[in-house]
Amino acid sequence: MTDLITPGAKTDDGSAVDVAVLGKALLGRWSDVRIQARKLAGNPELHKVEGLSHTEHRKRVFTQLGILVREDGVHRAFPTRLGGSDDHGGNVAGFEELVIADPSLQIKGGVQWGLFGSAVMHLGTQEHQDKWLPGIMNLQTPGCFAMTEIGHGSDVASIATTATYDPATQEFIINTPFSAAWKEYIGNAAVDGLAAVVFAQLITNGVNHGVHAFYVELRDPTSKEFLPGVGGLDDNIKGGLNGIDNGRLHFSNVRIPRTNLLNRYGDVAVDGTYSSPIASPGRRFFTMLGTLVQGRVSLDGAAVAASKVALTIAVKYATERRQFNAASQTEEVVLMDYQRHQRRLLPRLATTYAAAFAHEELLVKFDSVFSGLHDSDEDRQDLETLAAALKSMSTWHALDTLQECREACGGAGFMVENRFTSLRADLDVYTTFEGDNTVLLQLVAKRLLADYSKEFRNLDFGVLARFVVGQAADLTINKTGLRQAAQFMADSGSAQKSAKALKDEDTQHEMLAGRVQQMVADVAAALKGAAKLPKDKGAEVFNQHQNELIEAARAHAELLQWEAFTRALRSLEDPGTRRVLTRLRDLLGLTLIEKHLDWYLMNGRISMQRARTLAPYINRVLEKLRPHALDLVDAFGYGPEHLRATIATGIERDRQDEARDYFRALRASKDAPVDEKVMLAKEKDRSKK
Amino acid sequence: MTDLITPGAKTDDGSAVDVAVLGKALLGRWSDVRIQARKLAGNPELHKVEGLSHTEHRKRVFTQLGILVREDGVHRAFPTRLGGSDDHGGNVAGFEELVIADPSLQIKGGVQWGLFGSAVMHLGTQEHQDKWLPGIMNLQTPGCFAMTEIGHGSDVASIATTATYDPATQEFIINTPFSAAWKEYIGNAAVDGLAAVVFAQLITNGVNHGVHAFYVELRDPTSKEFLPGVGGLDDNIKGGLNGIDNGRLHFSNVRIPRTNLLNRYGDVAVDGTYSSPIASPGRRFFTMLGTLVQGRVSLDGAAVAASKVALTIAVKYATERRQFNAASQTEEVVLMDYQRHQRRLLPRLATTYAAAFAHEELLVKFDSVFSGLHDSDEDRQDLETLAAALKSMSTWHALDTLQECREACGGAGFMVENRFTSLRADLDVYTTFEGDNTVLLQLVAKRLLADYSKEFRNLDFGVLARFVVGQAADLTINKTGLRQAAQFMADSGSAQKSAKALKDEDTQHEMLAGRVQQMVADVAAALKGAAKLPKDKGAEVFNQHQNELIEAARAHAELLQWEAFTRALRSLEDPGTRRVLTRLRDLLGLTLIEKHLDWYLMNGRISMQRARTLAPYINRVLEKLRPHALDLVDAFGYGPEHLRATIATGIERDRQDEARDYFRALRASKDAPVDEKVMLAKEKDRSKK
Repeated sequence: MTDLITPGAKTDDGSAVDVAVLGKALLGRWSDVRIQARKLAGNPELHKVEGLSHTEHRKRVFTQLGILVREDGVHRAFPTRLGGSDDHGGNVAGFEELVIADPSLQIKGGVQWGLFGSAVMHLGTQEHQDKWLPGIMNLQTPGCFAMTEIGHGSDVASIATTATYDPATQEFIINTPFSAAWKEYIGNAAVDGLAAVVFAQLITNGVNHGVHAFYVELRDPTSKEFLPGVGGLDDNIKGGLNGIDNGRLHFSNVRIPRTNLLNRYGDVAVDGTYSSPIASPGRRFFTMLGTLVQGRVSLDGAAVAASKVALTIAVKYATERRQFNAASQTEEVVLMDYQRHQRRLLPRLATTYAAAFAHEELLVKFDSVFSGLHDSDEDRQDLETLAAALKSMSTWHALDTLQECREACGGAGFMVENRFTSLRADLDVYTTFEGDNTVLLQLVAKRLLADYSKEFRNLDFGVLARFVVGQAADLTINKTGLRQAAQFMADSGSAQKSAKALKDEDTQHEMLAGRVQQMVADVAAALKGAAKLPKDKGAEVFNQHQNELIEAARAHAELLQWEAFTRALRSLEDPGTRRVLTRLRDLLGLTLIEKHLDWYLMNGRISMQRARTLAPYINRVLEKLRPHALDLVDAFGYGPEHLRATIATGIERDRQDEARDYFRALRASKDAPVDEKVMLAKEKDRSKK
Repeated sequence: MTDLITPGAKTDDGSAVDVAVLGKALLGRWSDVRIQARKLAGNPELHKVEGLSHTEHRKRVFTQLGILVREDGVHRAFPTRLGGSDDHGGNVAGFEELVIADPSLQIKGGVQWGLFGSAVMHLGTQEHQDKWLPGIMNLQTPGCFAMTEIGHGSDVASIATTATYDPATQEFIINTPFSAAWKEYIGNAAVDGLAAVVFAQLITNGVNHGVHAFYVELRDPTSKEFLPGVGGLDDNIKGGLNGIDNGRLHFSNVRIPRTNLLNRYGDVAVDGTYSSPIASPGRRFFTMLGTLVQGRVSLDGAAVAASKVALTIAVKYATERRQFNAASQTEEVVLMDYQRHQRRLLPRLATTYAAAFAHEELLVKFDSVFSGLHDSDEDRQDLETLAAALKSMSTWHALDTLQECREACGGAGFMVENRFTSLRADLDVYTTFEGDNTVLLQLVAKRLLADYSKEFRNLDFGVLARFVVGQAADLTINKTGLRQAAQFMADSGSAQKSAKALKDEDTQHEMLAGRVQQMVADVAAALKGAAKLPKDKGAEVFNQHQNELIEAARAHAELLQWEAFTRALRSLEDPGTRRVLTRLRDLLGLTLIEKHLDWYLMNGRISMQRARTLAPYINRVLEKLRPHALDLVDAFGYGPEHLRATIATGIERDRQDEARDYFRALRASKDAPVDEKVMLAKEKDRSKK
């Protein structure tokens, strides 16, 4: 046990983290924006105050949004001509840092500017932008993004609110036909929203042209009462994010001007004629929904930020807190030196680094699409898939990390002043909103299958047939274990040798990527022909492989994180830092292989002998990373104004010093009582003599 | 997809749950007490009100404790002569059901009667009981169990508060020497506690006799102000359980009468002479701490109850809620018919059943020890080990289940009115209080090793030597995969055949029990000789295997749950019910094997071929259990007054019926708009002709 609690540790093999260098790498392309946003997030006026009622909390957050406007923190994505800076990547980078102040603030800001404002900007024309964006930007018009309905969340195409065009008055009639079509969980709906972008089925001349977006006024700006025909309910208290006034909305034949249709991708002429630059209704729908990706990108970043904060607090505490007198009478062991504690925190630290690097790549991709630099259909699809995969991974990871950190800090972790429980409650819903993670992973799987079958399409029949034969042969080899036997021979020799092989970057990549390929191939083979079956039978076959599909998507997402981490290593020039980070990346790769070890064994990708060396090898990697744990969290760059956790202030060490001084003085004073056990042992000795 | 949403489903193979019969089996030995306690828990006066401030919530819960006294719900464990009924098992059975009303109520009651009152009863003499128990029972004396200190939680032996005897005044002087010795997280300490049982190092005549318990008055009953020398702090807001006024306490040379020492296991005479019926200080310490097991037993039961409630709500919703139009245009699929949804909920249902049956056995064991029926040292040790193992499993399981249910219900799951988030926040700390789960599993592991080495001690050297040789031979077989090869041959034939083998009860048991044995043997071999090393070296060797130790304990705990489920099956006489429950137990066994499949493969306990059939086989078991899902949660016996979740009221189905009626009427009216896609397809057809 090393018990290195000082930062800046340099270990025998030359590993040493240059915290400043690593910190800069983590800040990424939009480092200036992040630094500014963190300064903002350190402002006590923007911090979450625990114990407020949900009504008080809502008021506080609304006031905070005003501060964000005043401090110019939230307009980067908007057009330069309206006071923004057309900076999409920077905008998201700044937004996601706000989660450190209060997740409610981040999400309420996201509703106002990222969803409501974005919808007007991306789905409307310049006329719409000029008319509505200034009030949205300066918060004169708090508004809603009214898409989700009680009856349909992830399945947006099935929403039932209607917008029927009436050529007689040149108006759309917005209507909620039944209670399952009430808009639900809508931020700003319960109290603050004066207007909304309402998603509804556009009906004109007896034809339903699918989901479109409409600008609808909700409340009288003075009285704050609902306008005629508009109604709603307060969602009241939620599991978290109680600074946001979520609620329901419904519309009883509310009439709005024809020109309130946000008509960039679909328009209705005065006479009711529908037109669209996108002929295919399906493609049109997905184009309109494409702006939603921004929410997923920023949730990914916010989840990474929350994981960083949690690990910083937990690691700081674990390097001070001592428990159980394992080795000596006078000094207990710090938590961070226990193997199990390393197992709990360090692999999550590795995943957090991977998620951070992957998020940075996602943000670059997002920026290049939204800035128009690279926004082909393929770019957009790649962005969608990447965002779906990474958002799922990072939001689940944040919850897992927050909980593990909370438990690793024991009772102190449960105190709200130490942040974990509060952040966890607020981030809980990140796993199911802006796309339910389980649904998002199915989107990823769908894409993996499409890519796989595209590959098929490009091959002629002969090659395809050979491919299938080749696969069958593989399966035979696996079944009879021949491949495993072959690997046994390659593995022959010391346990050390086989463990070392897993440290190799290419081997890790081969293992992770090979798994994705094989899983996709397996599920594709199982689904072969399902699309040609009658619809219900086909759906049944798909359902029988739903779990495999989702797991294949997860494997792909894990690979993406590993690859991003590996790419990031290449740009690290400081050799000591790169050595530590490479080891952390190895930890990620090794723990991913360990997590899915059953699969690797079952499919003959690893020998039993090598598999058995994996856990002890991971334990050794943990020991080697242990001295750098503090540096690795310090590099996240969060100050006390961000951590705001009593147990991360050094108070624990102060208390231990006080206790140590007390016992030292007691022993010196000769007043120290004798321990009964010691006394009994002495008596025993005496009676023997 | 079966889409069977009606309860009482009977499937082709004669499987059918008799809900009443199964419900009775689940209620167990103390069914009358449970029924009475559930009636109490259904009383709206005892229900948690969401959104109260922590101060309001505390007041409400204090008032509720008075209702429990009035309704005679909390005195079963106390002596009959004082108005109790000496019924220890029944007392815990009743207590744990209160979690359904409000976990704060359960835990605050647990502090008052289960910890404070129990300490007086079990550690004090009849004189102490007669003097203090009446006021504790009727709540005239709200009190604290002041054991944990900031510096030491799980490691009670290291607490630093002192109780030094002064023969001159025949008093103990209670003192807090430094801030790490402040009592911390103490329920009733911040506001209500008038007295406390304080744990402190007993020092007399210059000898420290270790931790003892003292009855100390804290506050003036009229002014509620701290008495001289007593001080404290409010812990304020926690991650949950905010109906309890946790706080800190410290003592500045507070003098209490000699007779306030709870002296059943250790006494100090007027002249300061120490005496104890238990000579060994170590054994004395563990005997005094033995009463703590009651807390663990009741947390185990409460965690099971919370899991049952969560699954009931989630399964009810999943059999009504429809999403995505997979197979037909008019009717979407209910969530429960999706494979992934079955994967999410049904294995957790199986584990909940296992945890419930295991808890019942634990409660019977607890009752037999505490009633004095079977309370040998060995009985007490068995009880301790069983409680540690099961409490760890069930409290983690409850958090996992609550979270999965919350996510499986999407946004609705996040609304506090649907219970999951609130219960989860309250139950979070169950994993680390009354014994941190990670520490408890190490206690279990210690016992497993002790049993293992006892086995060694009972063998003569020759046998021991043979045993080791035998082991080594086993290892060789595993390493070269010969055993696996042998199994391949046994497995030869269809996939069905190998899957069927895992359905066999004996095979499941052999797999689960064999894993525990092997893991313990492996870790024992690795630790061999560590006890003889110098203390720091020995500790280092232990630490290098800490993770394996904990995992071995977990494997043992999982086996205990599986065995309890299997024993419970034998007492089920209704054949249809037994068939369904046997399948549910199979699901438990199979998912445990799947969870640890890497281990089974790595150790040659399962062939690659058989391993590959496991997941598809589990999927088929899920399909077969699916029609009985509603019955299986109905058998838990919770009514709407316990569930109190909007989404479990049938409201979802009502909304769908309304939507269906709307669309039916629309189609009949011929006003229904044509879908653009349909129109385009028709136009295409026309242009072709």
